[in-house]
Amino acid sequence: MSYVAPLQDMLFNMEHLAGLDQVAQLPGFEEAGLDTAQAVLEECARFTQGVVAPLNRPADIAPSSWKDGVVTTSDGFKQAFRQYAEGGWQGLQHPADFGGQGLPKTIGAACVEMLNAANLSFALCPLLTDGAIEALLTAGSEELKAAYLEKLVTGQWTGTMNLTEPQAGSDLALVRTRAEPLGDGSYKVFGTKIFITYGEHDMAENIVHLVLARVQGAPEGVKGISLFVVPKFLVEGGGLGARNDVQCVSIEHKLGIKASPTAVLQFGDGLAGSVADGAGAGARGFLVGEENRGLEYMFIMMNAARYAVGVQGIAIADRAYQQAAAFAKERVQSRPVDGSVKASATIIHHPDVRRMLMLMRATTEGCRALATTAAASYDLAHHHPDAAQRAHHAALYEFMVPLVKGYSTEMAQEVTGLGVQVHGGMGFIEETGAAQHYRDAKILPIYEGTTAIQANDFVGRKTLRDGGQVARGFAAQIAETEAQLQSCGTPAAQSVARQLRAARLAFLEVVDFMLANAKAQPNAAYAGSVPYLMLAGNLFAGWQLARALWVAEQLLPAGQDPRFLRAKIATAQFYAEHVLVRTAALRDGIVQGADSVMALNIDDF
Amino acid sequence: MSYVAPLQDMLFNMEHLAGLDQVAQLPGFEEAGLDTAQAVLEECARFTQGVVAPLNRPADIAPSSWKDGVVTTSDGFKQAFRQYAEGGWQGLQHPADFGGQGLPKTIGAACVEMLNAANLSFALCPLLTDGAIEALLTAGSEELKAAYLEKLVTGQWTGTMNLTEPQAGSDLALVRTRAEPLGDGSYKVFGTKIFITYGEHDMAENIVHLVLARVQGAPEGVKGISLFVVPKFLVEGGGLGARNDVQCVSIEHKLGIKASPTAVLQFGDGLAGSVADGAGAGARGFLVGEENRGLEYMFIMMNAARYAVGVQGIAIADRAYQQAAAFAKERVQSRPVDGSVKASATIIHHPDVRRMLMLMRATTEGCRALATTAAASYDLAHHHPDAAQRAHHAALYEFMVPLVKGYSTEMAQEVTGLGVQVHGGMGFIEETGAAQHYRDAKILPIYEGTTAIQANDFVGRKTLRDGGQVARGFAAQIAETEAQLQSCGTPAAQSVARQLRAARLAFLEVVDFMLANAKAQPNAAYAGSVPYLMLAGNLFAGWQLARALWVAEQLLPAGQDPRFLRAKIATAQFYAEHVLVRTAALRDGIVQGADSVMALNIDDF
Repeated sequence: MSYVAPLQDMLFNMEHLAGLDQVAQLPGFEEAGLDTAQAVLEECARFTQGVVAPLNRPADIAPSSWKDGVVTTSDGFKQAFRQYAEGGWQGLQHPADFGGQGLPKTIGAACVEMLNAANLSFALCPLLTDGAIEALLTAGSEELKAAYLEKLVTGQWTGTMNLTEPQAGSDLALVRTRAEPLGDGSYKVFGTKIFITYGEHDMAENIVHLVLARVQGAPEGVKGISLFVVPKFLVEGGGLGARNDVQCVSIEHKLGIKASPTAVLQFGDGLAGSVADGAGAGARGFLVGEENRGLEYMFIMMNAARYAVGVQGIAIADRAYQQAAAFAKERVQSRPVDGSVKASATIIHHPDVRRMLMLMRATTEGCRALATTAAASYDLAHHHPDAAQRAHHAALYEFMVPLVKGYSTEMAQEVTGLGVQVHGGMGFIEETGAAQHYRDAKILPIYEGTTAIQANDFVGRKTLRDGGQVARGFAAQIAETEAQLQSCGTPAAQSVARQLRAARLAFLEVVDFMLANAKAQPNAAYAGSVPYLMLAGNLFAGWQLARALWVAEQLLPAGQDPRFLRAKIATAQFYAEHVLVRTAALRDGIVQGADSVMALNIDDF
Repeated sequence: MSYVAPLQDMLFNMEHLAGLDQVAQLPGFEEAGLDTAQAVLEECARFTQGVVAPLNRPADIAPSSWKDGVVTTSDGFKQAFRQYAEGGWQGLQHPADFGGQGLPKTIGAACVEMLNAANLSFALCPLLTDGAIEALLTAGSEELKAAYLEKLVTGQWTGTMNLTEPQAGSDLALVRTRAEPLGDGSYKVFGTKIFITYGEHDMAENIVHLVLARVQGAPEGVKGISLFVVPKFLVEGGGLGARNDVQCVSIEHKLGIKASPTAVLQFGDGLAGSVADGAGAGARGFLVGEENRGLEYMFIMMNAARYAVGVQGIAIADRAYQQAAAFAKERVQSRPVDGSVKASATIIHHPDVRRMLMLMRATTEGCRALATTAAASYDLAHHHPDAAQRAHHAALYEFMVPLVKGYSTEMAQEVTGLGVQVHGGMGFIEETGAAQHYRDAKILPIYEGTTAIQANDFVGRKTLRDGGQVARGFAAQIAETEAQLQSCGTPAAQSVARQLRAARLAFLEVVDFMLANAKAQPNAAYAGSVPYLMLAGNLFAGWQLARALWVAEQLLPAGQDPRFLRAKIATAQFYAEHVLVRTAALRDGIVQGADSVMALNIDDF
């Protein structure tokens, strides 16, 4: 088996860290208790391990291909996607009204992780479809919902996000794609979009593009951007109508996720055979919500996608970890330094191999625990009957999203790099597969907002806007965990409490620094934005592992599954002693080193 | 120009940090002063920038190919290698007796960096040839020297190192290739070697394989390994004779350095048309030095190669940095956060882009400074008239080699990763070229001994064996630099002195820890081996930058090239405040976290 879903860890997190019990008390989630979670996860594991994971390596070797505007996906993708749709997986977290299963994100996120661990390239298609569904659910008219949602939720059609243009990446103020009203409520759309994930493919009957464009006469900048649905095939009477004037002019040759077609899309270029055949009449588009509120709606998609990309980081890290651990238990090389074996032994006996595996394991588990607790906040923010509680949990969730996205994906760089390193020379040979994880992972800190974009969001909207209130609230909760650990008394708990405290204090120092400097010296504050995100992400992941350690210490005397619990304790302790300790250097760089970031003149680079 | 050699930085390091003056006083190096260095470097820059660098990207797209035992290198490689040989570059550091130029390593290392920055794949062929030359110079008989050295030094032939076998990577005790004496002083060699860089190619008339093998009846393990010359074509009467029975059965499909053919070589398999055509008579091999001392000789090659691989790390980091800086000055995206520009600006205006570029620049310059000072130690160790001085500098050099190799190559992972990140989405597209540096760099912490192997060497042979004497001697020198900086008084100098002091104390704590624990608790010590190497490498690179800062502060009032000097000060300060500060976490992990590395049972991974 090339991938084994970490069901026990996932269920432990849901039960003991994320409070699935509470989630299952929310209206609509009454069935979503631990038994349901276990049944869903087991079924998902069977599907992802058995059907999706085996396609990963072959699809890297023979990726999606483009010919004359048509994209053919890798062998097996089409069939696997049909199974995915028929299994109801696309609708897992979406409303039953539109054919979904309406499960909480706390459970759904685990399934997202499995699908991505099995095959990052494959999983991107559902990931983008989820975003399109969210945007239509939130801002779409009843007509748009009726026309598109069920088909998307059931996986008959797929969705895309069309933001980027050659001159407009992170800077959406520069979007030039334009939309002209046709008077009948529809628009004609003209422009070029790049980096469109699954912008064209053969896995579904129709592709529903969600496109940012400017209506003629709209204000400049981001306040003049509107969101449109531009389907590949127009929808007529519940069925598919004419081909729309959107064409895929090429797909990119990329470092990784090669099986995921990354399209350049041309809208309104007069595609032969389309509604606008040669006439330049534009691609037919349908406004989502109101004009000039496109960015707001797009953020709904982006936020869903950002969380999911963070989960992708955890997924690829786990896949790399599993492969490295298996290799380390097989590869025989050199005698152990402690003399415990008198001949060449499997390399997992060597301390540095153990260090690398522990680092991979601990950061992966830490990020998974963080993502799971964040998912519970999402569920509470959306489904709690009390509005104040909803607002409270929304703030917590919003605070954690850039950490889940930024920290988990940066962590995945280190973990997949270590995965190659554990393999030694074999890791550099593509046949081994370790290098693919390393290549695939590299997109994660870039798309759906680079780490710097996450960090700007984290500093500006998540820390400064409320005067550090949510940040300090979290710190107070962390202090409670420290107190629990101290009273627990085991050496592991003591050590973790000590490191957690130091990291929390470092975090608070940086929060103070941001609040004190952001206005008067914005460069000084934002020079530390990514280090601050990394510090906070590290702390939050370490905090969840510290909570896990405490739970494990409580459960251990009862004797159930001591092996899992002892491993959890060892992993949490390793994280605190080797990863949490990194926070001090980040604080020093932020607080004492702000000026040297900007000291060199631009011309001297 | 895709690559511009950093001549000013290189010459500054040679003059002010490595003491080229002193090197030029050594017997045989009388001509090797700063003027010579400048002339050689300028000529090397012209060649590498103009001829070699432009081949880098095309060769990644159309790498070396194998057909029926024949390897065809990428377009232009053969011609460029002829120019390289004719320019005398292969012989730059080798003795004039054999057609070389006999220049010191202090100068030669800069040329090695340029060649590698221009084209890592291309530069590997000369790098391995250098190793073969070193081994023959040190241990070869007069006959072997006469037959091979001049051809290698003048670049007519090339050399390889044949260590690895499928079951024997880091663990050379497991080598199975065997050699049987033929009675005439030659041997017949049988076996399979893998991962042989430029093991077969079309750039030279002959390939001189240096091969580790066991003579029948030799002791088990590494004490029974001998070194043989096994040429592709036998040498007869000064010319090329019959084809030897060594064949390239395949080349690897790799993550990076794709243009460098990585061969599987079969010795003694009865290659048709060879000396042993079908007869199974073995490949003809010639013993280097004495039987069973092969490992010792191989370490001569390895040590030369390890240093050079460290330089490769610096080279690829600089190439990635230059490309990222150029992109950041061109790409327009978003308004600066400080309001200094009221429209979207080039991304180098954004603090986090600056942070990334400074991190790339500072670590690259730090490692270059370290490698240059290490090279001067090498020259003093080999050419000083006084034996005690030679021994002293040999110890210093030996201490620094694992740092140059280990730290520079690990640093190159971070730098080339940041290079992709600065490019955003464009960085993930292979066309941009940033991803190639990232892929190419990944081999560096693996080959010629993984970082863990360097770290074992650093702990065992370099720190424990002399009871920490060299380590503490260096620390005392670092303390002197701190005192200089404190007396210098500028804020930058003060800040750097503070961070340098903290890092030095962390280093000393770890040295004490290693000395105290290595014997009684070897796992605890070696669990910290790589973190210790990273701590020491970080400190040594930061120390050299601290020295550079001090020099720059002294030179600044004289007014010559203030722009370069101010940039050096800013870079050194950034390094201290953002990179040197990482040493504390490494110390904590080593000293307080040793047990948690080994706490998890093997079966629980």
